[in-house]
Amino acid sequence: MQAVEIYDTTLRDGSQGEGISFSVEDKIKIALKLDRMGFHYIEGGWPGSNPKDMEFFRKIAQQPLKNSRITAFGSTRRPGGKAGEDPNLKSILAAGVQVATLVGKTWDFHVTHALNTTLEENLAMIRESVAFLRSKGLQVIYDAEHFFDGLKANPEYALATLEAAAGGGAGTLVLCDTNGGSLPEEIREAVVLAGKKFSVPLGIHCHNDGDLAVANSITAVLAGAAHVQGTVNGYGERCGNANLCSVVPNLVFKCGVETIPTENLRKLTELSRYVSEVANMHPVSSMPFVGASAFAHKGGIHVSAIVKSPHTYEHIDPELVGNRRRVLVSELSGLSNLLYKYRELNLDLELQKEENRELLERIKEMENQGYQFEGAEGSFELLLRKLKTGYREPFKLENLRVIIEMSEDKPAYTQSVIKMSVGDKVVHTAAEGNGPVNALDNALRKALDRFYPCIRNMQLSDYKVRVLDEKDGTGAQVRVLIETGDGERSWGTVGVSENIIEASWKALIDSIAYGLLKNKEGSRPGEG
Amino acid sequence: MQAVEIYDTTLRDGSQGEGISFSVEDKIKIALKLDRMGFHYIEGGWPGSNPKDMEFFRKIAQQPLKNSRITAFGSTRRPGGKAGEDPNLKSILAAGVQVATLVGKTWDFHVTHALNTTLEENLAMIRESVAFLRSKGLQVIYDAEHFFDGLKANPEYALATLEAAAGGGAGTLVLCDTNGGSLPEEIREAVVLAGKKFSVPLGIHCHNDGDLAVANSITAVLAGAAHVQGTVNGYGERCGNANLCSVVPNLVFKCGVETIPTENLRKLTELSRYVSEVANMHPVSSMPFVGASAFAHKGGIHVSAIVKSPHTYEHIDPELVGNRRRVLVSELSGLSNLLYKYRELNLDLELQKEENRELLERIKEMENQGYQFEGAEGSFELLLRKLKTGYREPFKLENLRVIIEMSEDKPAYTQSVIKMSVGDKVVHTAAEGNGPVNALDNALRKALDRFYPCIRNMQLSDYKVRVLDEKDGTGAQVRVLIETGDGERSWGTVGVSENIIEASWKALIDSIAYGLLKNKEGSRPGEG
Repeated sequence: MQAVEIYDTTLRDGSQGEGISFSVEDKIKIALKLDRMGFHYIEGGWPGSNPKDMEFFRKIAQQPLKNSRITAFGSTRRPGGKAGEDPNLKSILAAGVQVATLVGKTWDFHVTHALNTTLEENLAMIRESVAFLRSKGLQVIYDAEHFFDGLKANPEYALATLEAAAGGGAGTLVLCDTNGGSLPEEIREAVVLAGKKFSVPLGIHCHNDGDLAVANSITAVLAGAAHVQGTVNGYGERCGNANLCSVVPNLVFKCGVETIPTENLRKLTELSRYVSEVANMHPVSSMPFVGASAFAHKGGIHVSAIVKSPHTYEHIDPELVGNRRRVLVSELSGLSNLLYKYRELNLDLELQKEENRELLERIKEMENQGYQFEGAEGSFELLLRKLKTGYREPFKLENLRVIIEMSEDKPAYTQSVIKMSVGDKVVHTAAEGNGPVNALDNALRKALDRFYPCIRNMQLSDYKVRVLDEKDGTGAQVRVLIETGDGERSWGTVGVSENIIEASWKALIDSIAYGLLKNKEGSRPGEG
Repeated sequence: MQAVEIYDTTLRDGSQGEGISFSVEDKIKIALKLDRMGFHYIEGGWPGSNPKDMEFFRKIAQQPLKNSRITAFGSTRRPGGKAGEDPNLKSILAAGVQVATLVGKTWDFHVTHALNTTLEENLAMIRESVAFLRSKGLQVIYDAEHFFDGLKANPEYALATLEAAAGGGAGTLVLCDTNGGSLPEEIREAVVLAGKKFSVPLGIHCHNDGDLAVANSITAVLAGAAHVQGTVNGYGERCGNANLCSVVPNLVFKCGVETIPTENLRKLTELSRYVSEVANMHPVSSMPFVGASAFAHKGGIHVSAIVKSPHTYEHIDPELVGNRRRVLVSELSGLSNLLYKYRELNLDLELQKEENRELLERIKEMENQGYQFEGAEGSFELLLRKLKTGYREPFKLENLRVIIEMSEDKPAYTQSVIKMSVGDKVVHTAAEGNGPVNALDNALRKALDRFYPCIRNMQLSDYKVRVLDEKDGTGAQVRVLIETGDGERSWGTVGVSENIIEASWKALIDSIAYGLLKNKEGSRPGEG
């Protein structure tokens, strides 16, 4: 079985992505997760270019890693200089790693135009820099920048740079598609060509500018590369690097290549979400393998088929990568989506056939108004429960008023007054807020607190507004989605109205009502 | 030169993406953009499954399309039924299209387990359904669902289903990787095999579950497919469909394949952003070719190289796809952004060097707060003008109050009271509205009407709300974008605040102030 090393550069190349900035602590936390995952190498940073990176190397050295080796990145020595005196190479030594990753120029145009030196000097820079680090006992991974573009422009010279790195003692020759514009077939031919020339193992490092980084990485492996570089979630400069969350499961489950233990892939979804959380990037829900939508079924025909057999519309079992199957309820869906949803919610709500149809009609009608129950499972379950007799609302609005005041020289001031009934008790209170919805949220919590102390644990974690049919201007329908969590679980609720305050209020009271329902059920979720 | 038809299914398969729901109006607007783009086919929907889709077909028939043909989607007739009596096929006829896209089962397991019929009956269903639509004068595109999985499971049967479609008169046989799990090499072999068996042109329809949809689509074309299906931004069920925003530029600029006119690709970035705006999906900034980060340079070495020569770190010229180069985190980038904006706005406002720096600081500070001037050129120009002496605000707020009331049995009631000054006159008035912003809009117009009768011609045409940093819940910053038109031109304005009412108010007064400015200038836009 072919075996391939996985090399993660989230902490260096990944941090070049727009909007991404890791603190040293962030980097340590991510490195520990990557080690737990079993990736073979973790590129920690570029100590010569960034003082923050040096601190990372100091701190990570104190962590006992189980699986991964930390590498420090740097470029070949300066033109005309000496390897032993090069500040960049010295800082790699200072990082205290056992493995260095050195990048060098392959493309003749870059040598003469970006580096402003001669083609011969560049070859010397590569050979001497690698040899210097080898002489200090380090393993050297050589990144041939712009290899594929260089090979097109001047094949003889491109191969001569690899020869220089191999001559200097590099343990791996990594072919980089730095500008990310190569096609799979070009990658395949180049890897085969280099494989014939060199006995040193080859690696691949792809960027995603052509939307082909994953395909290019896999193609390189199938053509003989034994080392793959990429980042978690594909973060990186411009369009990002090859996404390891896609490359690794493809290699393992599709290509039969040995990488990390198959069992570890069950932590892949968690890894992806953890890194997007630390990076404070919106997770892309459609991300293959690990996205929240990756195994989410919406079309009615799809759902009725997966109920019979999941692999009718799933390429792999979601659990293999730690993800899960979801069924969405929308106007596109049929009865089978509803039935699946019951089962998933573990609802003990046996609706009669007629009730089912009624519910489906009601849902379609609400969706016509602009409701959307995807991501609003809380409102959906409440809707179901209200259809059955025996559901008691935990509180009722008597009336409310929101007042917003602004004047030329003062910022806006908002307060809300609400009157609610809980059972036979009436509570009448008021609160301020940053804005009208925040003021309502505050007043509602204040009103309900003494009846339901557990609402103190419920936190709004997300608030989204979508103006429907925006052409109607300020008179358009508005949909509000709210996400709430209580530390154990989280749930979404939805409200729609022409009035944004009313829409928000609907989503707000659903979020509290649903939280109370689940709290009452305690550890028996789903039991009515 | 190889030529390939581009088939867009954003309106049907794209709408299966989680969180995506298009109104009929949305679909019409998108279809007009796709037509302008020059895509050969636009799949409008599935009239047999969704009444909203039928309305789309009625409405689009009244639009004069220049380039695209509208297709209606449907499945083969029911097992045991007659094609001529099948409600699904009849609704395709009722849609009034000239092209139908029929999907049929290829995978024996699906026929027996999802469809619950015999392999023979499925072949008859395919042949008879295609033949029926052909007999009514329609062109038929046949989508072979699960072709690649079916081919693996039972190659003889999979090919027999294509034979049935070809025998019925299908004009294109589209090989679908429905579960999105195939590798490029599998796609290549299968397309070559089918190409040897059939003289009918082949098409390709890929899903992205393995993160390979773009690579698979291109591979199929290079193996002989003459028709590619996909969606804008890759929207679609689970991980989405092949992203046409990546497939088309790859085919044109990398593979030398003829698709749509190369010139039209300059509208690609605009198309992508328009569709994500209509779908209200967060645009993915790292999206290849069209993303905001696709040509954004962050690394110091990259930036200094691209200043010398852009193609050192760019695989294509961003302007070819209507995108633009950006340089992140640098004083330089700020100034060049500014100069870029002047040029774009065609502004005749020669700012002094000091004014430029001051403006830049002000813009950076506002962007930090969440302002965004893309799509808000009205607010941007007002900002510039306020910096110059001689600008007089057309009106001023003294104070305002908005009151929203709701009670258990009555819908929300909203009124606003505002006091404004115009020159030395003070006006104090009130108005109702559907919601708080609408009430403010009404009161503002009422107050200003007698001073500036021309505001009667100004109509809000778009109102958008984006919650920034949604994790802060109802206390998060909110950005409001308003689009206003006066019949001749339209302009965008922006407001940001923690309070949605304040943010809306800022965008509202800018929209009126800018309209008044342009009205005063008459037909001399841009002159101060």
